Amino acid sequence: MLLVEELAALTAPERVSTKLADREQAARDESSCAPVLPDVVVWPLSTEEVSRVVCYASAHEIPLTARGAGSSLEGNPIPVHGGIVLDLSRMDRIVAVHAEDLQVTVQPGIVYNRLNEQLKPYGLFFPPSPGGSADVATIGGMVANNASGIYSVKYGGTREHVKAATVVTGTGEVLRLGTRCRKTSSGYHLLGLLVGSEGTLAIATELTLALVGLPQGRKQGAFTFPSEQAAVTAIATMMRYGVDLAAAEFLDRRSIAALNRFQGFGLEEKPSLFVEVHGSPSSVEEVFASAQALCEEHGGTLIVLPGGRNPWEVRHFTTRAIQALNPQAQTIRTDLGFPISRLPDVVAESYAIAARYGVVLYTFGHAGLGILHALLREDPRDLVRWAAANRAKDDIVSFVLSMGGTASGEHGIGLGSRKYVRQEHGAALELMKGIKRLFDPKNILNPGKIWSDEA
Amino acid sequence: MLLVEELAALTAPERVSTKLADREQAARDESSCAPVLPDVVVWPLSTEEVSRVVCYASAHEIPLTARGAGSSLEGNPIPVHGGIVLDLSRMDRIVAVHAEDLQVTVQPGIVYNRLNEQLKPYGLFFPPSPGGSADVATIGGMVANNASGIYSVKYGGTREHVKAATVVTGTGEVLRLGTRCRKTSSGYHLLGLLVGSEGTLAIATELTLALVGLPQGRKQGAFTFPSEQAAVTAIATMMRYGVDLAAAEFLDRRSIAALNRFQGFGLEEKPSLFVEVHGSPSSVEEVFASAQALCEEHGGTLIVLPGGRNPWEVRHFTTRAIQALNPQAQTIRTDLGFPISRLPDVVAESYAIAARYGVVLYTFGHAGLGILHALLREDPRDLVRWAAANRAKDDIVSFVLSMGGTASGEHGIGLGSRKYVRQEHGAALELMKGIKRLFDPKNILNPGKIWSDEA
Repeated sequence: MLLVEELAALTAPERVSTKLADREQAARDESSCAPVLPDVVVWPLSTEEVSRVVCYASAHEIPLTARGAGSSLEGNPIPVHGGIVLDLSRMDRIVAVHAEDLQVTVQPGIVYNRLNEQLKPYGLFFPPSPGGSADVATIGGMVANNASGIYSVKYGGTREHVKAATVVTGTGEVLRLGTRCRKTSSGYHLLGLLVGSEGTLAIATELTLALVGLPQGRKQGAFTFPSEQAAVTAIATMMRYGVDLAAAEFLDRRSIAALNRFQGFGLEEKPSLFVEVHGSPSSVEEVFASAQALCEEHGGTLIVLPGGRNPWEVRHFTTRAIQALNPQAQTIRTDLGFPISRLPDVVAESYAIAARYGVVLYTFGHAGLGILHALLREDPRDLVRWAAANRAKDDIVSFVLSMGGTASGEHGIGLGSRKYVRQEHGAALELMKGIKRLFDPKNILNPGKIWSDEA
Repeated sequence: MLLVEELAALTAPERVSTKLADREQAARDESSCAPVLPDVVVWPLSTEEVSRVVCYASAHEIPLTARGAGSSLEGNPIPVHGGIVLDLSRMDRIVAVHAEDLQVTVQPGIVYNRLNEQLKPYGLFFPPSPGGSADVATIGGMVANNASGIYSVKYGGTREHVKAATVVTGTGEVLRLGTRCRKTSSGYHLLGLLVGSEGTLAIATELTLALVGLPQGRKQGAFTFPSEQAAVTAIATMMRYGVDLAAAEFLDRRSIAALNRFQGFGLEEKPSLFVEVHGSPSSVEEVFASAQALCEEHGGTLIVLPGGRNPWEVRHFTTRAIQALNPQAQTIRTDLGFPISRLPDVVAESYAIAARYGVVLYTFGHAGLGILHALLREDPRDLVRWAAANRAKDDIVSFVLSMGGTASGEHGIGLGSRKYVRQEHGAALELMKGIKRLFDPKNILNPGKIWSDEA
């Protein structure tokens, strides 16, 4: 086959595959979106190889989708138009640790947990933890989706931590964006545009990340509440008063019940809030005490998790636990973002909508950040319930958008949320499409994502 | 005159002026760049009026430059091609305080200090303080230049605090960018592109800003050092160890001497470091003690400023004090940004270059952020010294760019730093120009800035 031979000449024969097993692995992510097989998978090792492959794809107008671990949740790397998948997982080196500047330069395929393990001796870490997928998610994927995580309440999302990048645009041109300066006012912020563009503008082949010092002190705690409303009102209040939490995760009663059934955690089946505080040993106690006082004002009770478990050991299983309740069912997922003061309304309205459609809802998320995942789980073979669950999702997202929220707090738009983009961005969507044409004039980079080609 | 009558019909007759006094005021900023008179000044009061005026300017291809207080330092709002100046200083209202979300929505003409006065009863503030011009600088101008200030070491620059904006593009189209969510992964980050674009892409008519709680405790201090190198090495070390400073300002010996001559402050004429710490009352003491210990390790001495003055009362006069030394002279300014570890090198090399050219150099800046202002001050009538000072500036900027720094840490490129943009951004500059054409196809918005029209 011509394609394979040419790609092998641009990279190496053993790093180009048309085997069905390789193509199947590159066809899907962790979402419920239908997989689509690419024609060929390529594993590049350098910026130069990426540029050569993109030049080739551009010359022949072949769709090309960059891919990390495939742990995304909205179909972001599914190659819907086939073509080439560029699997960056072998570009996984640390290029340089700039400990004196609290920065690290990495290749995009490095896995989140591997990076932080290697930074530990320097007393540094990259904070936007991708939660349950921290052991597989790559930095490149996190950058593509502007990922966040439990620690983003204190440290911000991925975009705030990306300082510079080497990227390959849709024409194969190699550009350097950003600098290693902490602050610049020079020129347009192209780097900020790249972060969160889901591989549709350019492919990052090297990334410089801002790090933070490992906290001297940390303290975790779990609180149960008499109701969902009490729990989320407590969170909104803590945020209002600027309680400096490193993490503030909410799980509704049903999510807790699912966790118990999944792993026998023996948790009290009440709406729960898991928090973590970072700082000096004394400030940690101070901040934790403020958090506890505000939780108690809202009816919260500080509890010890059975077996003295770390809250995150429990929290990270949430999605899997809900999925395990009924393996025949599929997840209809939301990734709601909203002003933190509206958290109680979003939770109340989500339950009201689910009740109206007679479908079961689970809610949990980085509540301190104003991100809630409302999950509906139904068997797609039950056409009536499946349609009802999808309508419930649409109503929940519309409610959030109508208050000035976002259809994607942290997972990206991918395929799963494309239909909400027009409502969220209005006429600004045309400027986004114009920018796409500038970076990728032949529309070869991850085509069909964020908006559909026809839209 | 047709122009005036038409603009008056689009706004109001009393808010359109071709008077020389008004045009002269709109012709300049605080830089040494040559003023250029616009043809007419318009003071709009609403998004609708801004849109109508931009539509008119677009239809007739008239240059249009939005303007705040004109406190910028690189000629950023000088209407080099004449035309219309849109003075936004009368759009100075707070639209809404969202205290429960730690946000405020304002019009662009509101002055930094006025905003913070009005936020005080809510226990909140907008941290990127524009230093000595805080009493005049507008939020719109700060957003245009992605301004920073003494507190950006802890709280970041302006971009990190802009959550949403209503903007008018070069075609007169009104767009909403961003949301009031703390975090989103939906679509391209157009808002980040707007911030720092110096009014060349769109005119912001409403801005939603993220605020932070006023610190419960704060502590300020001043240190003197035996040498410039000792002072800046102390700063780089504090940053390396993550000492959580709210402000870390460096002033060289000559800047201190200039301050003494300017206002008789009676400061000890040694390289100095002014710091401030924010936090809970106990953590403030803890952090300050760490800072003091590290300063002392580098030969620093904690001092009390004469008269018990606040360091910022002194610091904010620096530029004026240097200017006052010789009123015949003009300032040749730099706005260097670099990785913090390179601060000692940047200071050493700047002095070496100045010595080589036989010109006098003053250095000061937000050193903790990796921003240094190296100022040369010479009389332009002394052609030899003037040329030497300009060459010294070019060499200093080139040195910083060669180490991956930036030609503008916080003032924007404007006119004054245009010649360095190609060296800093390389091929990415073509993408910036493409984005300019998307937002402003007729090149009417603040033309001639960031890059020259001919470049």
